[in-house]
Amino acid sequence: MAEQKTLDDLFLDTLKDIYYAERQILKTLPKMAKAATSPELKAGFEQHAEETQGQIERLEQIFEMIGKPARGKTCDAILGIIEEGKEIMTEFKGTQALDAGLVSSAQAVEHYEIARYGTLKTWAQQLGHTDAVKLLDETLSEEVATDKKLTQVATAEANRKAA
Amino acid sequence: MAEQKTLDDLFLDTLKDIYYAERQILKTLPKMAKAATSPELKAGFEQHAEETQGQIERLEQIFEMIGKPARGKTCDAILGIIEEGKEIMTEFKGTQALDAGLVSSAQAVEHYEIARYGTLKTWAQQLGHTDAVKLLDETLSEEVATDKKLTQVATAEANRKAA
Repeated sequence: MAEQKTLDDLFLDTLKDIYYAERQILKTLPKMAKAATSPELKAGFEQHAEETQGQIERLEQIFEMIGKPARGKTCDAILGIIEEGKEIMTEFKGTQALDAGLVSSAQAVEHYEIARYGTLKTWAQQLGHTDAVKLLDETLSEEVATDKKLTQVATAEANRKAA
Repeated sequence: MAEQKTLDDLFLDTLKDIYYAERQILKTLPKMAKAATSPELKAGFEQHAEETQGQIERLEQIFEMIGKPARGKTCDAILGIIEEGKEIMTEFKGTQALDAGLVSSAQAVEHYEIARYGTLKTWAQQLGHTDAVKLLDETLSEEVATDKKLTQVATAEANRKAA
């Protein structure tokens, strides 16, 4: 083997993966906000788009901390998750079930991010990137909070309306 | 609009999505078990393959409960997540970081399942499919437990070895 890859390489690869993913999510959230019929859900997607912008900036800070250029790497996972969300937007357009479907898609996105940020935070701890741990933890907390808010919107309104 | 789609349609669509996903996961787990270097991680993947078989059977029971044939629907999300896992298996083959990468991939899979089963359980409650709620909750608990076990393996062994 020409080179022995380590946790540093995995950390950088996964940072690029989520950086690409976040920018895809940032492009998709306005479409979800536009599609949503509930004003609360619409506002939630708009707020999360702002939050996502901040999360992208945190990732750029981490790239800088480890002395690497901020560069994305195609993330097939997020492309697949977003593609399924688009199918729901098309297939359930104009129906009472649309908002429930949008919440479901958004929660699949959130869980992808929770998995990746959880992993990155643990790796940053292992690698001694203390400042990165703090930033990753801030984003992780935001994603967990967004997922909880989505569950609230679903149970309080979207699912009942859809049934 | 020719038909007004409801939560029943969303429930069935998402059931087909996760049914397809579970069968893809069942095909992938033996490859992950074979790739893993830690005996504990290897055993964990093998055990989760057995659990996955049981989860597929639960889904088939739910299809029967709602009077629909058990049929999958291509799930782009899981295909993307698995594709990223395969990339890690190739790129980190033979390195100390492979197990940490495998755990990370497996946790992305688990979080996708946690999102989908959480949604399905809430929808089943809303739709009054009480027996389905019980089955979905059993699987959801297994996925959450698997995710926690993976975190333990990562922090106890895989990440340290990789660093």
